[in-house]
Amino acid sequence: MIAEYIAGVDIGGTKLITTIADATGIKARVYQHTQLQGDTLTIPKQVYYLIQKTAEYAGIHHEEVKAVGIATCSPFEKKGKYKEIVAPNLCGGLAGNEHLPNDWTSIPLEEFMSDLYQNVVIENDCVAAVVAEKLFGAGKMYDNLVYVTWSTGIGAGAYVDGRLIRGKNDNAPHFGHIFIAEDGPQCGCGNYGDLEAIASGTAIARDYGVRSAKEVFDNYRRGDTKAIHIVHRAARNFARGLASLNALFDTEYIVLGGSVMNDSDILLPLIREEFYTSFPVLSKNVIIEKSSLFEYIADISALSLVMPASWIESWRAGSQWKQAPALIKL
Amino acid sequence: MIAEYIAGVDIGGTKLITTIADATGIKARVYQHTQLQGDTLTIPKQVYYLIQKTAEYAGIHHEEVKAVGIATCSPFEKKGKYKEIVAPNLCGGLAGNEHLPNDWTSIPLEEFMSDLYQNVVIENDCVAAVVAEKLFGAGKMYDNLVYVTWSTGIGAGAYVDGRLIRGKNDNAPHFGHIFIAEDGPQCGCGNYGDLEAIASGTAIARDYGVRSAKEVFDNYRRGDTKAIHIVHRAARNFARGLASLNALFDTEYIVLGGSVMNDSDILLPLIREEFYTSFPVLSKNVIIEKSSLFEYIADISALSLVMPASWIESWRAGSQWKQAPALIKL
Repeated sequence: MIAEYIAGVDIGGTKLITTIADATGIKARVYQHTQLQGDTLTIPKQVYYLIQKTAEYAGIHHEEVKAVGIATCSPFEKKGKYKEIVAPNLCGGLAGNEHLPNDWTSIPLEEFMSDLYQNVVIENDCVAAVVAEKLFGAGKMYDNLVYVTWSTGIGAGAYVDGRLIRGKNDNAPHFGHIFIAEDGPQCGCGNYGDLEAIASGTAIARDYGVRSAKEVFDNYRRGDTKAIHIVHRAARNFARGLASLNALFDTEYIVLGGSVMNDSDILLPLIREEFYTSFPVLSKNVIIEKSSLFEYIADISALSLVMPASWIESWRAGSQWKQAPALIKL
Repeated sequence: MIAEYIAGVDIGGTKLITTIADATGIKARVYQHTQLQGDTLTIPKQVYYLIQKTAEYAGIHHEEVKAVGIATCSPFEKKGKYKEIVAPNLCGGLAGNEHLPNDWTSIPLEEFMSDLYQNVVIENDCVAAVVAEKLFGAGKMYDNLVYVTWSTGIGAGAYVDGRLIRGKNDNAPHFGHIFIAEDGPQCGCGNYGDLEAIASGTAIARDYGVRSAKEVFDNYRRGDTKAIHIVHRAARNFARGLASLNALFDTEYIVLGGSVMNDSDILLPLIREEFYTSFPVLSKNVIIEKSSLFEYIADISALSLVMPASWIESWRAGSQWKQAPALIKL
């Protein structure tokens, strides 16, 4: 029997993490800061380099890596056969993002990677997360399932009628950019009054005048009335966003992840109370829970995109995502 | 060759229309006012009665009707094997709808009809409309296609990745009930500040203080500043609703129908101007057009749900939906 290995890659605005796994579990995990200076192949080359280094740490030959799953910030734009990454937090050439140290308008990652590996799957990080939730989380039994991240940004991935939905450029469902108010603060995407501008972790911190949502929740726990007001308003708008998403997807199960959900003891009751007041026929039987994969979701999402079907049962049985070796900084 | 006939049924809050067609075109069309008094089988029995009468007008035996497509106001709720209609404008037993002359909480239409016909397909009227747009309208070439009706209410039907999306109770996408403002007037569904409450034809008329949106548009054309303000605000919010829908579906083509779109010369430029200001990567290549089937959509939607594949080419070639006989009132 020939050993078979897969790689998972997580591309964020600040960190790039690569993981190597086989049928028995995760073998090595490595990260670097995301390189934002250079030409448009800077990140693709960094991904390739990191997979090679991770293979070394895993003690395997790089050529044994047969498939690469990549979970990345997005959106995408399809150009011919391949999609490119057109993400505001990576590309300095997009309007409004001139603070980044590059002039990229898109990153041709798929074409670059497809020349190097037999099987490459690139999805938005929340789309990858919903695939992981469907394979390994509480979403296994549901044909209609949504994963939502509530973090510095807001995003989602969804199964509808048992199928992962993608849309024309693989950008469905870009949940953070639905409008939730007639007016409001400006989002990084240019919109005024969309969900991310009003209710993200970044927005919660901005409304209080601090650097992180965590500080606002700490103040909330001390009974600070300003913090309570801001958190309640954010939770209400987030829940109304979920109700809008449910009106369009008619879903069964909404799984919540992301750093803001570290304060799920405060947020879940607020979200549920608001959500179930919306159009009862649509909202009443929808389940809303914090992800059971919560702290492991980044480790397992990218791998889920290319995991062979024959591995799934043993990974489930052993909760292999919990057994990952320590993350190595390069 | 045995003659084959199909029936189309359109169930609205005020009218019930039935149509009989064969491979060569529409044979007869009949309508009655929707009966809202009696037990929960009142409407199912009325549908059955009207199909029989329409068969008479078509000069065929009722037994020759092999398939029935039903386009109806909704939402639905699945109960066991069959879905029931739980529509606020039909069911007087739902909270807030006590003005209706019945105490129904749901209508078991699918079970009733499935005992009578070999093939019964029941969908929301906008879902049926997007099937018609995909078969006979400008949507033929698109895998990602949305039909939106802007009428007294607001609704939609959608293909994503080439597949009609339905959700757990066949209620996707209930577009009128996404939230578009943090607060706002109450919708018939109970929501405050959803799209239908803020931008529907009913809302436009209410904001001006008249009985129909048509009067507001007449005043708009006379340069009335109040009418201009109300129409511009409604068009802006409608366009922001379309941008939200597109953020979640990543669509290619949005087809607009419904009575408010009779004033598309005023509305389309306003909608497009607002829509394309939203997150450019997502909005820039989306096409927004008035439906080419506009005045025929109700005639062809229900039939499209059950039309045999072998009929499609000749129906397309002859634009059979334009050749329907006059509607007969029973």
